[in-house]
Amino acid sequence: MQITKKRLAHIVFESDDWASKTFDIVLLFMIFGSIFVAILDSVGSLRAQYGEVFLILEWVFTGLFTIEYLLRIWLSRRPKNYIFSFFGMVDLLAILPTYLSFFVMNSQLLSVVRALRLLRVIRILKLGRYVAEAEYLTKSLKASSHKIMIFVGFVLTIVLITGTLMFIVEGPDSGFTSIPVGMYWAIVTLTTVGFGDITPITPVGQLLSSLIMLMGYAIIAVPTGIVSSEMASQKRRLEKSNQIVCPACKHTGLEKADEYCRFCGEKLG
Amino acid sequence: MQITKKRLAHIVFESDDWASKTFDIVLLFMIFGSIFVAILDSVGSLRAQYGEVFLILEWVFTGLFTIEYLLRIWLSRRPKNYIFSFFGMVDLLAILPTYLSFFVMNSQLLSVVRALRLLRVIRILKLGRYVAEAEYLTKSLKASSHKIMIFVGFVLTIVLITGTLMFIVEGPDSGFTSIPVGMYWAIVTLTTVGFGDITPITPVGQLLSSLIMLMGYAIIAVPTGIVSSEMASQKRRLEKSNQIVCPACKHTGLEKADEYCRFCGEKLG
Amino acid sequence: MQITKKRLAHIVFESDDWASKTFDIVLLFMIFGSIFVAILDSVGSLRAQYGEVFLILEWVFTGLFTIEYLLRIWLSRRPKNYIFSFFGMVDLLAILPTYLSFFVMNSQLLSVVRALRLLRVIRILKLGRYVAEAEYLTKSLKASSHKIMIFVGFVLTIVLITGTLMFIVEGPDSGFTSIPVGMYWAIVTLTTVGFGDITPITPVGQLLSSLIMLMGYAIIAVPTGIVSSEMASQKRRLEKSNQIVCPACKHTGLEKADEYCRFCGEKLG
Amino acid sequence: MQITKKRLAHIVFESDDWASKTFDIVLLFMIFGSIFVAILDSVGSLRAQYGEVFLILEWVFTGLFTIEYLLRIWLSRRPKNYIFSFFGMVDLLAILPTYLSFFVMNSQLLSVVRALRLLRVIRILKLGRYVAEAEYLTKSLKASSHKIMIFVGFVLTIVLITGTLMFIVEGPDSGFTSIPVGMYWAIVTLTTVGFGDITPITPVGQLLSSLIMLMGYAIIAVPTGIVSSEMASQKRRLEKSNQIVCPACKHTGLEKADEYCRFCGEKLG
Repeated sequence: MQITKKRLAHIVFESDDWASKTFDIVLLFMIFGSIFVAILDSVGSLRAQYGEVFLILEWVFTGLFTIEYLLRIWLSRRPKNYIFSFFGMVDLLAILPTYLSFFVMNSQLLSVVRALRLLRVIRILKLGRYVAEAEYLTKSLKASSHKIMIFVGFVLTIVLITGTLMFIVEGPDSGFTSIPVGMYWAIVTLTTVGFGDITPITPVGQLLSSLIMLMGYAIIAVPTGIVSSEMASQKRRLEKSNQIVCPACKHTGLEKADEYCRFCGEKLG
Repeated sequence: MQITKKRLAHIVFESDDWASKTFDIVLLFMIFGSIFVAILDSVGSLRAQYGEVFLILEWVFTGLFTIEYLLRIWLSRRPKNYIFSFFGMVDLLAILPTYLSFFVMNSQLLSVVRALRLLRVIRILKLGRYVAEAEYLTKSLKASSHKIMIFVGFVLTIVLITGTLMFIVEGPDSGFTSIPVGMYWAIVTLTTVGFGDITPITPVGQLLSSLIMLMGYAIIAVPTGIVSSEMASQKRRLEKSNQIVCPACKHTGLEKADEYCRFCGEKLG
Repeated sequence: MQITKKRLAHIVFESDDWASKTFDIVLLFMIFGSIFVAILDSVGSLRAQYGEVFLILEWVFTGLFTIEYLLRIWLSRRPKNYIFSFFGMVDLLAILPTYLSFFVMNSQLLSVVRALRLLRVIRILKLGRYVAEAEYLTKSLKASSHKIMIFVGFVLTIVLITGTLMFIVEGPDSGFTSIPVGMYWAIVTLTTVGFGDITPITPVGQLLSSLIMLMGYAIIAVPTGIVSSEMASQKRRLEKSNQIVCPACKHTGLEKADEYCRFCGEKLG
Repeated sequence: MQITKKRLAHIVFESDDWASKTFDIVLLFMIFGSIFVAILDSVGSLRAQYGEVFLILEWVFTGLFTIEYLLRIWLSRRPKNYIFSFFGMVDLLAILPTYLSFFVMNSQLLSVVRALRLLRVIRILKLGRYVAEAEYLTKSLKASSHKIMIFVGFVLTIVLITGTLMFIVEGPDSGFTSIPVGMYWAIVTLTTVGFGDITPITPVGQLLSSLIMLMGYAIIAVPTGIVSSEMASQKRRLEKSNQIVCPACKHTGLEKADEYCRFCGEKLG
């Protein structure tokens, strides 16, 4: 059995038969595997012990990803479109640093190149299309994204004002060394994360912080309210769409309780 | 009055008459009592003072739990099923360490054995069946568990990417010693726990953290929205299922308390 | 104009005319005033400067509260009921420590007595009855209090198990000195407060913490869901109660859309 | 083309044609620009390097804002109303400090004057009217603001009582140096921010903290519930207001898209 270029393109780009599904699953394991190795390699003690094993695995994965990258360019109808697409760039970034590390002698630069290699984890976003139900969540978030954006803008205004006020009130002695740092603190506080790396020391600063925290407590309800009411409304719409089709005019959107079609007046069974 | 084996099995496994209910309640108090002693025994100062009392109580509880364990094996129709069931293993783990501590001389190993004894607290999960209303909550969580799992998967992807980015940006000097530590920090931050044991120091790291926190602020609304809309929908379904259909005009939406149809005036049964 | 005992009792216990309302408002200001003085007195620098002013005000408030306390006993129909009621005890606790500080010479005991005096702030709970709308919130909380109690029980079980596990995994070196401390840490973490006074150091402890935090993230949605759905259901009930009364049988609970009374079959206008 | 005073007033105060819209947009960029410069100027390292550039830009912005301020006074029908309005004061505060810095020699006072200049960020609130959708959010918050105020009052009462109790239990050794500091800690804890700058050390204090945290966990659901149910109710009202009554059978619940009544088959207008 001879594999034509068309057949190969089908295997690489589609996922509707045995061969193409297997290709996807193997790729999936390779992505997870290379991420897992990168994670373990970042742990100092493991690297000291198994550094060479990680290096070999690194080259195996890079080799396989290179073959996949070249295959995609060769099989693509418009190779340029793929190369300059977001995932095309990510695919290139996933293999380039390993090759670059050959030619770089400067150890400082080498560590930057090594770090770039870790950006490979962005490839995990490709998995999104394997999870059908993820669509439901992204839809809900997108439907309320406009309101959430305005809300984030509102929060950022509060962050700017409170960050500036705290910088004036507390000053560099408490760690508020600049307005950007004050804004960082305001975000840490408003989102109720509260690291505690920078905290108010003066009574006025503590009073102001208390007001900011109570305000954050009150407004944290807003995004929840937006998403909740959006989801509830989607559910109601879904329940409504479980409706009956009129046998005369073929209109959908009728409810079980209806006695006459509301579009053509036909009496329903 | 002579107690037959069948009667004893009834007392141990059922809880529908005076004797079996008493058995359950006594067992309940014993579980709570042994947990309470284990908690107090873990406090250094109390142990120094009352260590011997705790040891005696420990042996009393272990003795009673051993009798219960042997009873359950003897009275069970299929003893093997019980022994290898989850709660059978837990029941065994609750008594074994105390006996093992006899034969272990090595003090290091002894402390591990002592620690194992504390796993007895898992027995508390057995109490679940005494709380009838717990079912309502577990149902609500189970109904939305699928969506929550996908959401957790989505969160873990964000955690992996942000953990890696923070490891690259901040590096070991700020405490981000490896990618797993970066992921631990990302979880601490996204869930708004914010211990503050590891915090960003560089401006770029603080900017990135701010974005992650604002994102966490926006997406914390999602699980709440899922559970809220699930609970609201369950309530509506409950209210709808209390509705009756009029036998004359076939209108739905009547309530159980209605005596006449509010659409055609027909007397209801 | 002579004030009878009955009139005085009316002024003290009721609040429906000019005199009794004035009494309530004056008492209100006195409670707030005494709390304000106690707060300022607790600040070291202010105490050093205005300590004597605070002492005089303290005695003025104590004198007035004593008169009020004696009045309430004298005017009460069943003095014993008042004295041993919750607010009767609080009223006594608000004045007793000031007098006791006269007879106590031991300085250690004196500071305890001084501290007891601060319990006067509990009197602020008396204000609850002035806020009519507070009832709405307490009702909503009470309606869902049963479910919330079960949920808290569920959370406490998780707290017990995770606190014990963290005590075993991390041990005293990371600050997990006993199971109660581990449970305190588990509560700090699960509620997303995250002080950071105790944090996991070992990789296993950090992994376990991550799981606990993600779990806390998922279950924080539950109490919100309970209260939200309860409030939504209350609103629907309120909207339904905006209904019409049948002119024939005087039954309430009819809706505007109804054409026939669902209780007696009367045709509605 | 000669610009009359009336035409100029139109450009400054309205925003309905080309010229007036351009004026608004230029002002917008100037506000953002001056804020951006103020933020960068607060960063020590940037100030050391680009301090002079920032100073020049500062004077350019101040000059332009001064022209705008004088224009507004000159063109206003009632100049006094504008000068003593909130935004009139803010506009003055935005330019005054830069001029004052000329006459102030004392360096301590100078830094206060410099700080005052940063209050210019409050001008950003003027942008609110450019965001039409912001109205929806403010409406939702206003509709539930009354309940939220009562809730905040309820929270403050808890804060006062728990802050006092923690001051009594923990005392100055754990950082609880006064009741106001205790209240600050209580707010930090109840809002789940949890800085960790002040933490309980004694077992009694840790137990009390655990209770406070669990309470905060339970009551954090309340504001969310309020806003969520308010938003859901607003959505339902919106959906209901899109419904039509059948002119023949007087049934409500018809939708705008319906062409025939689904209860009696009547053709709708």
